[in-house]
Amino acid sequence: MNMSKGTVVLAYSGGLDTSCILVWLKEQGYDVITYLANIGQDEDFEAARKKAESLGAKKVFIEDLRAEFVEEFIWPSVQANAIYEDRYLLGTSIARPCIARRQVQIAKQEGAQYVSHGATGKGNDQIRFELTCYALYPEVKIIAPWRIPEFYNRFRGRKDLMEYAEVSKCPNPSCTVGYWWTLNYESGILENPKNHAPSDLFLMTKSPEDSPNVPDMVEIKFNKGVPVMVTHLKEGTTKTTPLDIFSYLNELGGKHGVGRIDIVENRFIGMKSRGIYETPGGTILYHAHLDIETFTMDREVRRIKQDLGIKFSELLYNGFWYSPECKFLRHCIAKSQENVEGKVQLSVFKGHVYILGRESPGSLYNEELVSMDVQGDYDPCDASGFIKINAVRLREHHRMEREAQLKQ
Amino acid sequence: MNMSKGTVVLAYSGGLDTSCILVWLKEQGYDVITYLANIGQDEDFEAARKKAESLGAKKVFIEDLRAEFVEEFIWPSVQANAIYEDRYLLGTSIARPCIARRQVQIAKQEGAQYVSHGATGKGNDQIRFELTCYALYPEVKIIAPWRIPEFYNRFRGRKDLMEYAEVSKCPNPSCTVGYWWTLNYESGILENPKNHAPSDLFLMTKSPEDSPNVPDMVEIKFNKGVPVMVTHLKEGTTKTTPLDIFSYLNELGGKHGVGRIDIVENRFIGMKSRGIYETPGGTILYHAHLDIETFTMDREVRRIKQDLGIKFSELLYNGFWYSPECKFLRHCIAKSQENVEGKVQLSVFKGHVYILGRESPGSLYNEELVSMDVQGDYDPCDASGFIKINAVRLREHHRMEREAQLKQ
Amino acid sequence: MNMSKGTVVLAYSGGLDTSCILVWLKEQGYDVITYLANIGQDEDFEAARKKAESLGAKKVFIEDLRAEFVEEFIWPSVQANAIYEDRYLLGTSIARPCIARRQVQIAKQEGAQYVSHGATGKGNDQIRFELTCYALYPEVKIIAPWRIPEFYNRFRGRKDLMEYAEVSKCPNPSCTVGYWWTLNYESGILENPKNHAPSDLFLMTKSPEDSPNVPDMVEIKFNKGVPVMVTHLKEGTTKTTPLDIFSYLNELGGKHGVGRIDIVENRFIGMKSRGIYETPGGTILYHAHLDIETFTMDREVRRIKQDLGIKFSELLYNGFWYSPECKFLRHCIAKSQENVEGKVQLSVFKGHVYILGRESPGSLYNEELVSMDVQGDYDPCDASGFIKINAVRLREHHRMEREAQLKQ
Amino acid sequence: MNMSKGTVVLAYSGGLDTSCILVWLKEQGYDVITYLANIGQDEDFEAARKKAESLGAKKVFIEDLRAEFVEEFIWPSVQANAIYEDRYLLGTSIARPCIARRQVQIAKQEGAQYVSHGATGKGNDQIRFELTCYALYPEVKIIAPWRIPEFYNRFRGRKDLMEYAEVSKCPNPSCTVGYWWTLNYESGILENPKNHAPSDLFLMTKSPEDSPNVPDMVEIKFNKGVPVMVTHLKEGTTKTTPLDIFSYLNELGGKHGVGRIDIVENRFIGMKSRGIYETPGGTILYHAHLDIETFTMDREVRRIKQDLGIKFSELLYNGFWYSPECKFLRHCIAKSQENVEGKVQLSVFKGHVYILGRESPGSLYNEELVSMDVQGDYDPCDASGFIKINAVRLREHHRMEREAQLKQ
Repeated sequence: MNMSKGTVVLAYSGGLDTSCILVWLKEQGYDVITYLANIGQDEDFEAARKKAESLGAKKVFIEDLRAEFVEEFIWPSVQANAIYEDRYLLGTSIARPCIARRQVQIAKQEGAQYVSHGATGKGNDQIRFELTCYALYPEVKIIAPWRIPEFYNRFRGRKDLMEYAEVSKCPNPSCTVGYWWTLNYESGILENPKNHAPSDLFLMTKSPEDSPNVPDMVEIKFNKGVPVMVTHLKEGTTKTTPLDIFSYLNELGGKHGVGRIDIVENRFIGMKSRGIYETPGGTILYHAHLDIETFTMDREVRRIKQDLGIKFSELLYNGFWYSPECKFLRHCIAKSQENVEGKVQLSVFKGHVYILGRESPGSLYNEELVSMDVQGDYDPCDASGFIKINAVRLREHHRMEREAQLKQ
Repeated sequence: MNMSKGTVVLAYSGGLDTSCILVWLKEQGYDVITYLANIGQDEDFEAARKKAESLGAKKVFIEDLRAEFVEEFIWPSVQANAIYEDRYLLGTSIARPCIARRQVQIAKQEGAQYVSHGATGKGNDQIRFELTCYALYPEVKIIAPWRIPEFYNRFRGRKDLMEYAEVSKCPNPSCTVGYWWTLNYESGILENPKNHAPSDLFLMTKSPEDSPNVPDMVEIKFNKGVPVMVTHLKEGTTKTTPLDIFSYLNELGGKHGVGRIDIVENRFIGMKSRGIYETPGGTILYHAHLDIETFTMDREVRRIKQDLGIKFSELLYNGFWYSPECKFLRHCIAKSQENVEGKVQLSVFKGHVYILGRESPGSLYNEELVSMDVQGDYDPCDASGFIKINAVRLREHHRMEREAQLKQ
Repeated sequence: MNMSKGTVVLAYSGGLDTSCILVWLKEQGYDVITYLANIGQDEDFEAARKKAESLGAKKVFIEDLRAEFVEEFIWPSVQANAIYEDRYLLGTSIARPCIARRQVQIAKQEGAQYVSHGATGKGNDQIRFELTCYALYPEVKIIAPWRIPEFYNRFRGRKDLMEYAEVSKCPNPSCTVGYWWTLNYESGILENPKNHAPSDLFLMTKSPEDSPNVPDMVEIKFNKGVPVMVTHLKEGTTKTTPLDIFSYLNELGGKHGVGRIDIVENRFIGMKSRGIYETPGGTILYHAHLDIETFTMDREVRRIKQDLGIKFSELLYNGFWYSPECKFLRHCIAKSQENVEGKVQLSVFKGHVYILGRESPGSLYNEELVSMDVQGDYDPCDASGFIKINAVRLREHHRMEREAQLKQ
Repeated sequence: MNMSKGTVVLAYSGGLDTSCILVWLKEQGYDVITYLANIGQDEDFEAARKKAESLGAKKVFIEDLRAEFVEEFIWPSVQANAIYEDRYLLGTSIARPCIARRQVQIAKQEGAQYVSHGATGKGNDQIRFELTCYALYPEVKIIAPWRIPEFYNRFRGRKDLMEYAEVSKCPNPSCTVGYWWTLNYESGILENPKNHAPSDLFLMTKSPEDSPNVPDMVEIKFNKGVPVMVTHLKEGTTKTTPLDIFSYLNELGGKHGVGRIDIVENRFIGMKSRGIYETPGGTILYHAHLDIETFTMDREVRRIKQDLGIKFSELLYNGFWYSPECKFLRHCIAKSQENVEGKVQLSVFKGHVYILGRESPGSLYNEELVSMDVQGDYDPCDASGFIKINAVRLREHHRMEREAQLKQ
């Protein structure tokens, strides 16, 4: 009889890869606990549970993390206007620390020294996953089969996995990998960045060509930079919990084909990869928050906060959610949001989000001050001095250049 | 007989404001030369010429600046991905230094010590205009009637101007102010940022609701970060000069309702204002350039360049095109574009731009390296070391926090 | 009999300029309240009171702001490592908002609508002073005589002021202007930046050539980035209140000729000026804080905080202490200092500060981890992977360059 | 008979570590070419050559890189004001890419597939070394014995190395490691960051306590941000080649005890380490360049360049000299230096550098403009408008805060 090498908590998706990993880990002599996080993806969790059990999982955890994912991970990203390389709304990147945090909690609680996952050796997810684990459980040992030669040399493609699954009596291996904030597609013919994405690729969003011919108009109410209510302007539907708000906007965006992007991005690992993402609700929130923020926040605070948000986005992308610097940035960004409150009205139509208007009880917008018709408490003569003083430096520069030319 | 106080070169739009200013300047004892720049706006230049002459302009300059505007001002902004406060593509801001540069040249050539303009005392344009003048012609004197109490107290609204125009026999004063890269609307009921923009506001772009139900697909070819050819993928139409490329994309974007935004922005002068802009061609170029740039530029160069671009955008917005720092940034940004070449295919549909694919002779994208199926010249084991070293700092932080807690 | 035009609170130094301003303001029909802040400068405050009274001040305020200056203004600057253009420790800049804040409080309390000061029209201090006033008392009216033609055309030099003072029976006008954190000298022969400063210029610091031949060694204890105790290592002297700590370090630095700089700096107003400063205590604190901060703060937090500190320094220099962005930065910087605690030992000798050693109860320094002799919880093999992954990008770049060369 | 495993070019210092590595590599079956770079360190190169030969090196390269080190590596760092974490002038960091570049050239020329070095597995030098190699010779294989278990487990301390050296008949192993720009010390009792450095540690600099009681005054002439002449003001000595200038300033700084620092720094690898450095010439150049740069460069260009310099310094420290981003930064920084020319006079005394004065043919300093006594082409009234416009935002913020308070 074999002695167990110890217990592994495996992040299990129910798909082919992690099913094979489950069996392989047992083969290597580990006790395996599977853990599947519900962060909003469309999945049959009970089927996954049964599959894991039938494959020999010692214990199966299925955890509903949706509320904490929205409140603790998505909301701070909305506050930050988090966006990677000007385009990617960081869906998967945000999900990883949320998932891994719970995995580490389970490992500690179950006395497991090991955690494992099915992320590949070339991607970002392995890093996001493992940095979270090391940060929260420094003594943990990580088994990443796709980086272990015995594993990846044995399973050189989908075919090898399928055969192994069959032999292992792995029931009905599906392979959808879905995240809730974002769905992403990264392989196959799309590895040639010139090829167009096939129209049937997308799961969360309708094609704008097939989406409704009539816009939906909603109002999003923010408090401290975070959405607290969504109202459909015509239908009067209202959502007020984080989970409901986010789900509703996800649906709405999906219905109108909002949030599809096709990009080439730079992985932390140093290579460029092509990614196709759909982030319907996230895209609506990004635009709405940007609007209410600029409306209510001082220009210079916003400028500083913009830099912090760019840095924050990089950290998210690279997997550093649980780092001292990311914690520091979250604190600073949250501080900047104290007065970010008010309502934004917008319409969603054919893949696009249109901001229509906004109001706030605490805006720095001053209708009288800015009016073309009213002078208000503003003396236009001051602008002359302002401009002339700003020109001092420019005129000095001109003088110097002229002198330099004369010398030649 | 009156002695002339000197000669003024007035930036003349043909509209009501500058027509009144023309007459008023003469009334004050100046000789007035009018100058009207063609930067692509839809205007009857000959009518404007006649009007200026009939109002007593000593000389009338109508200058076609379209080619230099596109090549010297728009192209560098495309290279920079110039965008103000994450949303505004800086249309008017870019036009101002181009217009004022020529005005200063005329003033020098005509021996005029004065220049004048019709920009208001609360806006950004006065600054963009005047900083350019001071930078290029430090001895110039600027007459900004909307900052002179005798002027603005006399003309307190449109009605006063109309009456004055009538008395002055000012023929048929129109008041469209249009720019080519961007059209913007800033006053009236829109001064309440909650009010929605009326549907008939826009001049360059169709409403997405009325735009074609079939996308147009084009390919834009870039060299050194600048578009050098546009091809309509179905029709085969091809444009190759800067002016043609830009005009074509403007039309195409307009046809599909691309580039409308409604924002509240922060003026240099310190107040928030609402702006509604349409930038059809600029929006297409923004997305296409972003794509080819990320495809061809090293990640870290891009990161540095991103910061330079944000700074550059601020400078543009605030009127510092002709400043030593903006010149320095243009140089650095241009340097970063040396390898930004290739083709981007995109579709334009219902207000949105969709990137479909891209290719480049000099991309850093390496299909083999990134492939999920091929290992290539990459050892996944290295990632373990990479992650563990990145975790050293995080684990130390955890250690310190734990020690701190134990002490309490 | 004249009606008063209203009441002015004048920032009064007791020197020639502000004495003349006092008299001139009365001559213009104002009631004048003088206000003199004690922020540590070497001054006969009672003499100044008498002078103000004899010149007709309606009321005289002499306010001891030393403790609040140190705690509320100097300490946050120490936390920020505030330094302008890499060299200037911002002495006067920090003092201004502290002085002006009290002046505004007096103006409100005394029902005065006006405040006035003797800062020149070319300098930074006018801005620092007035931005504080406008920020804290937006309705205030500011009288800046050195920007009023009737004043500055009448008093074209020291001689005019002296004559006016004599006629006005202004007793014994002195003209030392001293600040406590920093003393600065800006005019006369030093306006030629090539000329060396005369040796008798400095007031707070001994010349290093004449300073003691034996160093003094002290230990500074920090908590939350702020000094809480200074101990002289040989003599055992100990200081524990902010005021005592700062005074003691000022003396110590002065004794050893620490903190003298001769720079050309860029004023907010757009011109370059030469400044000679002495900041003895501030220089010691700058070095000590830098040391304890790097010792206890995570690398990446420090990197972000470094940028915030540079921005903060600019804001201080330009007079924006009481701005939303500066308030935001102070909050963020203070947050970064939570773990900045420990002791730094240093010696002060002949104009220089030498850091000798440091310790902290919560340092991230891990003697075992870093040891050359002990491996600790660190596997050197990981470094290979770390380096190779970092090289992925560099090798791709090399590949692309080689391909580009081959094509040519 | 043994087949050779291939040829290794070993960076050889002549010291104990690399002598053992030489022998060990041969023992492992490699042909070993040793390579020793002269970058100014005090070393008996002929003795090193003989030692290498006697230990069995197949070939010995001793390369004088001093001139290229100064011109191609130190000068750009001077232009950048390169400094890591506000204190460290990056001596060793700058030397590494220079040394490794030549090593790679030798490897290519000699057909060697391997390079090797004696840097430890916890330090920065391994990274600086290897990133350079991978960037310039992507196919190279690197042997880093201190990261190979068979090596580091066998040689667990100096004693093991000594014994091995003796058995191997390694003649007279010395162990000084010296770099020219900087000398650094990092181990032993200094691993406790509280311990003071012993007084006999330093090799390049005199103790300030023992240094001359009379300052030396020199003038450094810069062109394009780079020193082109040094003149001793009293003695009239003049140096004009890069190598002579740098050597002379190194001597001068050393004589006066300039450039000693004791810091804790953050390694790229994620740990904090204590470093004690002496950088005599570099410190003088740092101060002189900072002065001439601020004197001649526009404020805002300088501000942008400051950020680039900080980024550049990080890259240097982390070993990315030969990266696309570092190349880009060097280009931008060099561009910023075009007008940085003129002369700085300074004195060196008792560990400190004092800037005394400066002049430039192309300075932006305008004595008339800045003069307290002359108005020049400057209207002080403009400052009022400048300040009031800058206050618009601050007053709006105050208004909003007041309204918020009233609501509560």
